[in-house]
Amino acid sequence: MSNIFGHLFRIATWGESHGGGVGVVIDGCPPGLAIDEGILQRDLDRRRPGQSDIVTPRKEADRCQILSGVFQGRTLGTPISVFVPNEDARPEAYAEMQTAFRPSHADYTYQAKFGIRNWEGGGRSSARETIGRVAAAAVAKVALTELLPGLEVVAYVKAIHDLDADIDPATVRLIDVESNAVRCPDAAMARQMIERIKEVRAQGDSVGGTIECIVRGCPPGLGEPVFDRLEADLAKAMLSLPATKGFEIGSGFAGARLTGSQHNDAFELRDGRVRTTSNRSGGVQGGISNGEDIVFRVAFKPTATIAKAQKTVTADASAETELAARGRHDPCVLPRAVPMVEAMAVLVLIDHALRQRAQNGLEPKLTAHADT
Amino acid sequence: MSNIFGHLFRIATWGESHGGGVGVVIDGCPPGLAIDEGILQRDLDRRRPGQSDIVTPRKEADRCQILSGVFQGRTLGTPISVFVPNEDARPEAYAEMQTAFRPSHADYTYQAKFGIRNWEGGGRSSARETIGRVAAAAVAKVALTELLPGLEVVAYVKAIHDLDADIDPATVRLIDVESNAVRCPDAAMARQMIERIKEVRAQGDSVGGTIECIVRGCPPGLGEPVFDRLEADLAKAMLSLPATKGFEIGSGFAGARLTGSQHNDAFELRDGRVRTTSNRSGGVQGGISNGEDIVFRVAFKPTATIAKAQKTVTADASAETELAARGRHDPCVLPRAVPMVEAMAVLVLIDHALRQRAQNGLEPKLTAHADT
Amino acid sequence: MSNIFGHLFRIATWGESHGGGVGVVIDGCPPGLAIDEGILQRDLDRRRPGQSDIVTPRKEADRCQILSGVFQGRTLGTPISVFVPNEDARPEAYAEMQTAFRPSHADYTYQAKFGIRNWEGGGRSSARETIGRVAAAAVAKVALTELLPGLEVVAYVKAIHDLDADIDPATVRLIDVESNAVRCPDAAMARQMIERIKEVRAQGDSVGGTIECIVRGCPPGLGEPVFDRLEADLAKAMLSLPATKGFEIGSGFAGARLTGSQHNDAFELRDGRVRTTSNRSGGVQGGISNGEDIVFRVAFKPTATIAKAQKTVTADASAETELAARGRHDPCVLPRAVPMVEAMAVLVLIDHALRQRAQNGLEPKLTAHADT
Amino acid sequence: MSNIFGHLFRIATWGESHGGGVGVVIDGCPPGLAIDEGILQRDLDRRRPGQSDIVTPRKEADRCQILSGVFQGRTLGTPISVFVPNEDARPEAYAEMQTAFRPSHADYTYQAKFGIRNWEGGGRSSARETIGRVAAAAVAKVALTELLPGLEVVAYVKAIHDLDADIDPATVRLIDVESNAVRCPDAAMARQMIERIKEVRAQGDSVGGTIECIVRGCPPGLGEPVFDRLEADLAKAMLSLPATKGFEIGSGFAGARLTGSQHNDAFELRDGRVRTTSNRSGGVQGGISNGEDIVFRVAFKPTATIAKAQKTVTADASAETELAARGRHDPCVLPRAVPMVEAMAVLVLIDHALRQRAQNGLEPKLTAHADT
Repeated sequence: MSNIFGHLFRIATWGESHGGGVGVVIDGCPPGLAIDEGILQRDLDRRRPGQSDIVTPRKEADRCQILSGVFQGRTLGTPISVFVPNEDARPEAYAEMQTAFRPSHADYTYQAKFGIRNWEGGGRSSARETIGRVAAAAVAKVALTELLPGLEVVAYVKAIHDLDADIDPATVRLIDVESNAVRCPDAAMARQMIERIKEVRAQGDSVGGTIECIVRGCPPGLGEPVFDRLEADLAKAMLSLPATKGFEIGSGFAGARLTGSQHNDAFELRDGRVRTTSNRSGGVQGGISNGEDIVFRVAFKPTATIAKAQKTVTADASAETELAARGRHDPCVLPRAVPMVEAMAVLVLIDHALRQRAQNGLEPKLTAHADT
Repeated sequence: MSNIFGHLFRIATWGESHGGGVGVVIDGCPPGLAIDEGILQRDLDRRRPGQSDIVTPRKEADRCQILSGVFQGRTLGTPISVFVPNEDARPEAYAEMQTAFRPSHADYTYQAKFGIRNWEGGGRSSARETIGRVAAAAVAKVALTELLPGLEVVAYVKAIHDLDADIDPATVRLIDVESNAVRCPDAAMARQMIERIKEVRAQGDSVGGTIECIVRGCPPGLGEPVFDRLEADLAKAMLSLPATKGFEIGSGFAGARLTGSQHNDAFELRDGRVRTTSNRSGGVQGGISNGEDIVFRVAFKPTATIAKAQKTVTADASAETELAARGRHDPCVLPRAVPMVEAMAVLVLIDHALRQRAQNGLEPKLTAHADT
Repeated sequence: MSNIFGHLFRIATWGESHGGGVGVVIDGCPPGLAIDEGILQRDLDRRRPGQSDIVTPRKEADRCQILSGVFQGRTLGTPISVFVPNEDARPEAYAEMQTAFRPSHADYTYQAKFGIRNWEGGGRSSARETIGRVAAAAVAKVALTELLPGLEVVAYVKAIHDLDADIDPATVRLIDVESNAVRCPDAAMARQMIERIKEVRAQGDSVGGTIECIVRGCPPGLGEPVFDRLEADLAKAMLSLPATKGFEIGSGFAGARLTGSQHNDAFELRDGRVRTTSNRSGGVQGGISNGEDIVFRVAFKPTATIAKAQKTVTADASAETELAARGRHDPCVLPRAVPMVEAMAVLVLIDHALRQRAQNGLEPKLTAHADT
Repeated sequence: MSNIFGHLFRIATWGESHGGGVGVVIDGCPPGLAIDEGILQRDLDRRRPGQSDIVTPRKEADRCQILSGVFQGRTLGTPISVFVPNEDARPEAYAEMQTAFRPSHADYTYQAKFGIRNWEGGGRSSARETIGRVAAAAVAKVALTELLPGLEVVAYVKAIHDLDADIDPATVRLIDVESNAVRCPDAAMARQMIERIKEVRAQGDSVGGTIECIVRGCPPGLGEPVFDRLEADLAKAMLSLPATKGFEIGSGFAGARLTGSQHNDAFELRDGRVRTTSNRSGGVQGGISNGEDIVFRVAFKPTATIAKAQKTVTADASAETELAARGRHDPCVLPRAVPMVEAMAVLVLIDHALRQRAQNGLEPKLTAHADT
């Protein structure tokens, strides 16, 4: 069950960083949606290695094949199987991983859990696994557009190391995110970030950062208290991504330092709808979307793989040793993590949209009588 | 499904803040465990209202009854039903909630989702719902002690408003947490926090803060990549608690500002086991526990209910109005949220312990040969 | 998880035959439905002991209390907790069950699985557990009527021992089922069945039989291939009832003895809809309802509890012994099993109706152009 | 969710009869098991078309590829993806299916549910979908042998049309099942069955029958009351197979015609264990295995596809028409359904074995003191 996500729009991802390939089976997708490989490829290309000079140079076209569930360009309502072969696998480059645990990687914990691990390039713990998520989310986006027209998800790099971008979540556009290699829509700061990433790579080091994500146009009513609150499912979705260390929504950790009178979002009537005058709630109240923008942030640690030598122990736990990475890797995961964050947000939203339709229908339950 | 939590140790909570009561059904509990109402009551008493002069004065004994699943003092392996009647319900005090949406509460979103809501005291969105979680976790603790002897969970208040406590997670003890009303084991800071809470209450205001939680003695191997990573399930569990705005594990958001060489946890051999020399991972690597202390933090917003007048709209969305709380409420949720955080951590751990036993057994998979 | 049923309309039942009581938590019920205890009680009364002279004389009013989820007579969309106290418990009558395993009961297997059992009256394996199912189904019926107006479920006794009733599934009415104590709408045969049950009881014996169930007015489209086919979920639901030994739909086991040309249901256009000229499919094709009547049968074994002495072994597995039942019991479970079969059918249908609405909406997908 | 089966050993099947292929993702498999494509192929070959002169002549090698989850011949504990390409697809042969609904097939119901269908050869409702189940079960068998050594599953044809075989479930061997094309271990009857199948095929007709399955060596304790009883999950598993109409366990429908004193299985002590002197329970009591042989039967209807002309309606529901099958098909599904029944039984058993290990451990809970 650990490789299956979602309750109604359900995905099962599979594959290791080296081996036959990676993929996903999508179960529960609504029928009749116009889907083809090009739609998936657009998002896979935003995630793939080798797309710029600040990401890993591993050469993978990440070309996807849809093997089932789509007939004459339309989804059938039956499982959609997507397959992406591995191409530029160089297991030989990972020989030393066979004999020693890489610090802050999953080598040791996989061994401790399963008693066996695929030591070629991280195996299942590789970010390559997220291909299935991104492909599934490309399908989910089409479904979401059908169910909730006007809904839009935009993620972007908010901070790299100690460099913080200045971005207005209310107006940021995908085109601005995609306008530079680091996926930070603050163009001036993006240049500094790219510089910083190149610097730390040159030093054999790596760097972390924060991604912010905004969902605009989400109607009130999504989210299922008490356990499957919208923010709870978003938190789980984000923390299931490799290298994540934190999640916060709306005011987040900073909000914990305010008083109630500073923090509360007053209600008002605007354009015939119940709206809030501020948005420290981050678009969710009591676990349910309130119609305001959903805004959350995800912390990513610096890439664990670095060229500098590090202390570790051998894979048979018999001796201490040193390890310096030789394989190809990202000096900073954030540029490629932007489409991953977006994908997980989309997967949470489609699932909750279907759950909402199941129990409550998708029609608004509260019609405002705005005559103030 | 939204009121059911867990995959193998599964709980279904029910009840509203006013009405017949609240409770929980626990499914999948191992048999033969020594359980009685006293064990549950100890934790329920830590959660209940009226326990000190800085929490809500609502008078609820929160006396629990075990209605099934325990026979002659032992769990049967069949569902354990726990019931706590509501006693000091004063629905009349909530009359104005019927006619206006409380800012930053769930009144509006419940109405928008379901088209109906129980406006007596918050209904299902009340923190009273967490009684079922705390009762279930008291049972889960006994099961966990059986499965993973030596495992220990301690949560405590780390910060209130801008007051930050100085606590060593490695050594903090439950007895120190319970030694004061605010549940902060830094005694000097606890006094200031209590003072602060009384001050804001006197001003008709409220205040937020941060709770830290530590899990000691967790063996390597718990957590199910890729979606049910231990930190992902912890994040979901915590964000499913009322008033939470953020979750971070190990280095958290601060870790995003480090480089890889600063952040990575080097491995060493210690006492015949693979250990790390630092713990910025927070006890979890690749979604799986690594045997180090699991450390995470949860941000709570200031209580939404405040005595100060606030702008809002009427419940039929026809007019703007003002609202000032008259009901009993906590000026700060954190003291009572400590056992809730602990409970959710325990529920995640028991579920993962059972999942680990199912797939991999609970015996260590990696025996160290410590001859360095 | 084993005490939780359903994917969207989810119920968690709890309780043993002796102890505090039995009950159910219903999660995922649509909001706004008119529900009160009287609606539940009507079906509980059809299930309860002591209702006629051919069922167990145990005195239980089975009076239900709704503890949550209903506000001012309407469902809230939050969990509905239903509680039925045990009243006429006589654990002392079961003392000998403590020391010996009753043949063809669950005493031995519970002990073998859990290492412990509640030996008072069958504990969790008692048919008393089905109170929660019947109560939940009473709620589900109201939801189903809202979602799929015109849908109707009728179950009845088709055979007792070697006595087979002659009933037309297409026209049988609930009022005819309820017109006699054995719940067989063939009045003449019902009299013989009642006579037979009294005879076997007088002999210290018991008797089995078959229940048939019909669902009329189910639209095409319910059922989720490939694993959650409508007949698969019905089969599971029925075989989860105590004392069941078989399930068949439409032509069933007899259909296995036909040729394809005898068995196939030809399609025709009737009243502007696609219809079949026969119904050996039993209303389901490819796992999905086809709009015809859904017809299935469930085999119940004779009650295991009999007054005659039987060979068995002691509960510590140390010696062979004999056992003759003294407790109150049903000489034939079928009269009281009729509402249980109906309840499980309803629970399967509401779940599939909600699943269908989630993925496909509930509007017809195929409009016939009946101009033949 | 409808294409995902199992709670801990979970499979997601995908694919249509025509298109890229079919496959399965297996999640939750224990690590360290010796698996290769040859092990899967053995069972796939028993299921594949063209294996004898009484099954469909469609030419499919059904050659499987393991794309993930196995490393150096051992399972990793991560998802195992299995892919079988479609080869001998002749969509043109199915052109008439585009324009008319085949009687007693899923053409109409898929259209009614989804508003779209893949009309090439049955699409998702094709028995070709069961390739994924058989492949997954081949893996599950290896896991099951590890967890419950001595457990053995044997399925065979019990009846074809009105021809009933005489087989002793206690002693029947796989080698006898596989000794003839119809998979009936009663050699004399097998010859008649083969003859009968050829006759009905010559007449442009088809024929149904019954498969019996026996599980030997299953320890007491498997099965999860109340909803996931072992027989309930077996019933669901079997009724999820194409063309099934009924399921019965132990005495089944015939048992419903007995009295309790005839039906009950007396307990005795044998070889130091609690055993029953008869097995009308079919190896399961109260939903839990009792250590006796598990015996159940599954009814299969005659193949819906027949060469004889049949009345039906057009796919746009505008007119009545006639249809006679031209595509390749099985005149009787049972010979190829034997490995499918076996596969589904294995998948239920491995899931329950893991669930049992999770909650109760796999060690016997009741040690007999056989001193009679």
